[in-house]
Amino acid sequence: MQKIRLEITMSLDGCVAGPNPSAAHPLGEGGEELHKWMFAVRSFRAIHGMEGGATGPDDDIVAEHFENVGATIMGRHMFGGGDGRWGDNPWNGWWGENPPFHTPVFVLTHHARKPLAMQGGTTFYFVTEGIHVALERARDAAAGRDIVLGGGADVAQQYLKAGLIDEMQIHVVPVFLGDGARLFENTAGRQAAYDCVRAISSPSVSHYKYRARR
Amino acid sequence: MQKIRLEITMSLDGCVAGPNPSAAHPLGEGGEELHKWMFAVRSFRAIHGMEGGATGPDDDIVAEHFENVGATIMGRHMFGGGDGRWGDNPWNGWWGENPPFHTPVFVLTHHARKPLAMQGGTTFYFVTEGIHVALERARDAAAGRDIVLGGGADVAQQYLKAGLIDEMQIHVVPVFLGDGARLFENTAGRQAAYDCVRAISSPSVSHYKYRARR
Repeated sequence: MQKIRLEITMSLDGCVAGPNPSAAHPLGEGGEELHKWMFAVRSFRAIHGMEGGATGPDDDIVAEHFENVGATIMGRHMFGGGDGRWGDNPWNGWWGENPPFHTPVFVLTHHARKPLAMQGGTTFYFVTEGIHVALERARDAAAGRDIVLGGGADVAQQYLKAGLIDEMQIHVVPVFLGDGARLFENTAGRQAAYDCVRAISSPSVSHYKYRARR
Repeated sequence: MQKIRLEITMSLDGCVAGPNPSAAHPLGEGGEELHKWMFAVRSFRAIHGMEGGATGPDDDIVAEHFENVGATIMGRHMFGGGDGRWGDNPWNGWWGENPPFHTPVFVLTHHARKPLAMQGGTTFYFVTEGIHVALERARDAAAGRDIVLGGGADVAQQYLKAGLIDEMQIHVVPVFLGDGARLFENTAGRQAAYDCVRAISSPSVSHYKYRARR
């Protein structure tokens, strides 16, 4: 059965990015602390074309994340390149010629742009009609496989508030960012309709999986 | 060395109490979910005069909490009995004749009241002059032992913002309350000055201990 899954890493004070995002700190100040655990594991490194990396529970969780994914949805900030119109020589994402998605990726933006085909099966489609249209297109593209919501906070909040997420996996890193993009704001409390179905911890991160009560 | 310690249980969406607190739901709707893990362990039951209870990491953490405590500080809501003046037949706390503190307890309130001596060494002192005076009095009373901040969110935030907390232990329960009293709001981001020094997880709760960088 096809699922809409949110996978996101959060600080213990509830932020998925730090304050004052900039070109030097695209995840905000301190935001890179959130993702160290992921960069360290074998499956994450492998899908980014790097060798080595740790095995164990964190690695198993990341490997599971990449299973059965048919489409990805993300916000403009996660795709990167700043705000506003795309311009003549537009930003092509953080991930180089062969991005780690290997599926169609639907980027929510206010600014239209032609699809961008990359190597390895990733094509970025830019959707200006909002979250429902992006989800419809992702459903068509995913052909029965899961749809992964990549963030940032704003996109996650919109889908959560609309009751469209089947499964959430929140990776909690025991760091405080002090300020930044909070995940559980502007959601009308819809997260209260989810039950924790699995909790796995390593010394550096805890993985909490939730499923919507139906 | 005497420490000022915050010990508090938080939902994964950052709340230490649920929405709409009332006499029927003093911890807010769903708030009792946060404390089930604590009611289940042997040390907590023992200090409340009950037999039995689980042993293991959660129990060890609770036992550690009760070690070397010389004074407790809490807010009026944690003490209970509603807002406003105390009246002629005032509320004497949630805990019966022999409260589990066995130390002087300083209750922050806007309404003066005479000290209330209970059995077992607990005396409640009502402090109307704010967090700094309450802390001074707690320091005197604790005679070198630690001072525990019991909550709620408002008291924790005030002490955190003022840079007065040495150690925080946040117990995270993988439940969502949807709304309620958020811990990491109105703190001016001061939590970013703390480092995680220990993380211990059981299936029902994760215990994160932080120390202020000095």
